Amino acid sequence: MFVAQRPVAVVSDIKVAGLYKDRFSQALHDADVTVLSWHQIPEGETSKSTQQLSQLHTELLDAGMSRDGIICALGGGVVGDLAGFAAATLYRGVDWINVPTTLLAMVDAAIGGKTGINHPYGKNLIGAFHQPSAVLINIPVLETLHPRELRSGLAEVIKYGVIADAGLFGDLETQVEDILSVSSEPILEIVARSAKIKGTVVGRDEREAGERMILNFGHTFGHAIEATTGFGAWTHGEAVAVGMVLAAGFGVMLEKTHPWVPKRIADLCASFDLPTSIDTIHLGSLGEAVGYDKKNRRDHIKFVIPVDIGEVEICSIEREDLTTWLQRGDI
Amino acid sequence: MFVAQRPVAVVSDIKVAGLYKDRFSQALHDADVTVLSWHQIPEGETSKSTQQLSQLHTELLDAGMSRDGIICALGGGVVGDLAGFAAATLYRGVDWINVPTTLLAMVDAAIGGKTGINHPYGKNLIGAFHQPSAVLINIPVLETLHPRELRSGLAEVIKYGVIADAGLFGDLETQVEDILSVSSEPILEIVARSAKIKGTVVGRDEREAGERMILNFGHTFGHAIEATTGFGAWTHGEAVAVGMVLAAGFGVMLEKTHPWVPKRIADLCASFDLPTSIDTIHLGSLGEAVGYDKKNRRDHIKFVIPVDIGEVEICSIEREDLTTWLQRGDI
Repeated sequence: MFVAQRPVAVVSDIKVAGLYKDRFSQALHDADVTVLSWHQIPEGETSKSTQQLSQLHTELLDAGMSRDGIICALGGGVVGDLAGFAAATLYRGVDWINVPTTLLAMVDAAIGGKTGINHPYGKNLIGAFHQPSAVLINIPVLETLHPRELRSGLAEVIKYGVIADAGLFGDLETQVEDILSVSSEPILEIVARSAKIKGTVVGRDEREAGERMILNFGHTFGHAIEATTGFGAWTHGEAVAVGMVLAAGFGVMLEKTHPWVPKRIADLCASFDLPTSIDTIHLGSLGEAVGYDKKNRRDHIKFVIPVDIGEVEICSIEREDLTTWLQRGDI
Repeated sequence: MFVAQRPVAVVSDIKVAGLYKDRFSQALHDADVTVLSWHQIPEGETSKSTQQLSQLHTELLDAGMSRDGIICALGGGVVGDLAGFAAATLYRGVDWINVPTTLLAMVDAAIGGKTGINHPYGKNLIGAFHQPSAVLINIPVLETLHPRELRSGLAEVIKYGVIADAGLFGDLETQVEDILSVSSEPILEIVARSAKIKGTVVGRDEREAGERMILNFGHTFGHAIEATTGFGAWTHGEAVAVGMVLAAGFGVMLEKTHPWVPKRIADLCASFDLPTSIDTIHLGSLGEAVGYDKKNRRDHIKFVIPVDIGEVEICSIEREDLTTWLQRGDI
């Protein structure tokens, strides 16, 4: 992809721009890239709205963005989702580059081409598949990431270990200290391995017809936790951590999962200060929320169950069985 | 594509639904198709707005539209563009079927996968490429089409003759009466030939990197006429008719077009009661409007010039040359 000679519009949020606008501008300048404009959206999930999308379209047109321009997202998942969807829909699609600045975005959101915004009825209900031309990851930016956000990203890294790479899972178990101190080498290693796993899965099943669903491990419960606690109370990774432990427990109940799996996942999550359980009182309401996850079809749920660390299976589950199990609460 | 067993949401406009809702519902019922819901948008170009799109998304979600549902557009270009874009962006893309009810939509808008809405800065600036799973054309619905709308569609049919099929152009010259009386056989023939030409061109160049541009013949001036006269004053086809005559005239001036071409196009347009010229006073302002056509890049315009009937060439033109020629007014 030939960036030089093509105008680049950078989309970021207020926080990331405050930290990196100068350095990023300088880097683009040094690379002979023409920056057409900078756009800053407010931080947080509420920016993934039709209003913000329309405003971004208008700003891009005001700046003179053309069909052969490039949109560059600089930020976390919210920035990437919104900027990517703006790129997907302006002039029926312009090229874009994603520069994720959070661990969660580096290992998950930035890989796979999913872009979109939220609808009052649910997250990411409106969007498009629009692959970025490039994803550029610079590990040192993680040094300014809030520790809770770092841990949120680590939950997805643990997920990759469970679904596809027992070796990665084992390395995480032995490198907790190094990883939490954002020591460059180990972090670079786990980011690269995670991004590669996601890229491989997505490359084989871009539109989520089958295999891509394994990436949802921990997310059926995770989304339900986020929905019932009000989005933002838990980080995505915290909800996924509990979701993975619950999914493994459900798998043991079904006799599909080896009995040691839930504890090994819970122990690794706990070592990164991620939660591993929720109030029993809360479990009942989860069952209801699960029914509204957009990945479900009617009363049957495609559910990802770990067989062992490094191996998962996609099962078709009756929603009622899940609900009953949750309501019994003996997890 | 297996429609039975998959819920179908029909999107139409108030006028078309008034004419065909009962019959279309009956036909779907007879074909064992489950209709999930009907959605009616107001008639006309103003429905291609973010507000209408958001409302349609909400209505579809309210109706229980799922990822494996099908959206069916029943109407003209506006309905197809909006419903197709809603399909492109709901759940990051659901299948859709287009049932065009105007001649213009049958031969042009419905073929090629362009969907989208307008932006205050211009038509179709926001959208996506999202191919329908099927385009179903039923010629008798043209009997209820306003004659002026029929003629608008005929301008595009004439365009196909000029860009790719001298035989079609010749047949149009000899079948004016039959076509204007919406006699089924000749109309079916020209619709099929036009749709096939568009399908072939689009199949070779979906994203308009090269060859697809020949479909813009007559449209550079056509869009400018629509923009400067206020959208809606002229039909799209009326503007394209004049645009084709002007483009041919410009080609003669450049000595790229055989001298008889402009008159032959103008005569055929006139026989279908399509306009073939605009006020000299008006020509000057056209040059300015041309610069804002989104298909142009900077000061060079990719411009489609007919060499002869049935053969065109894509040329790179200086916008200034076009403007000067228009302002001279000796056309």
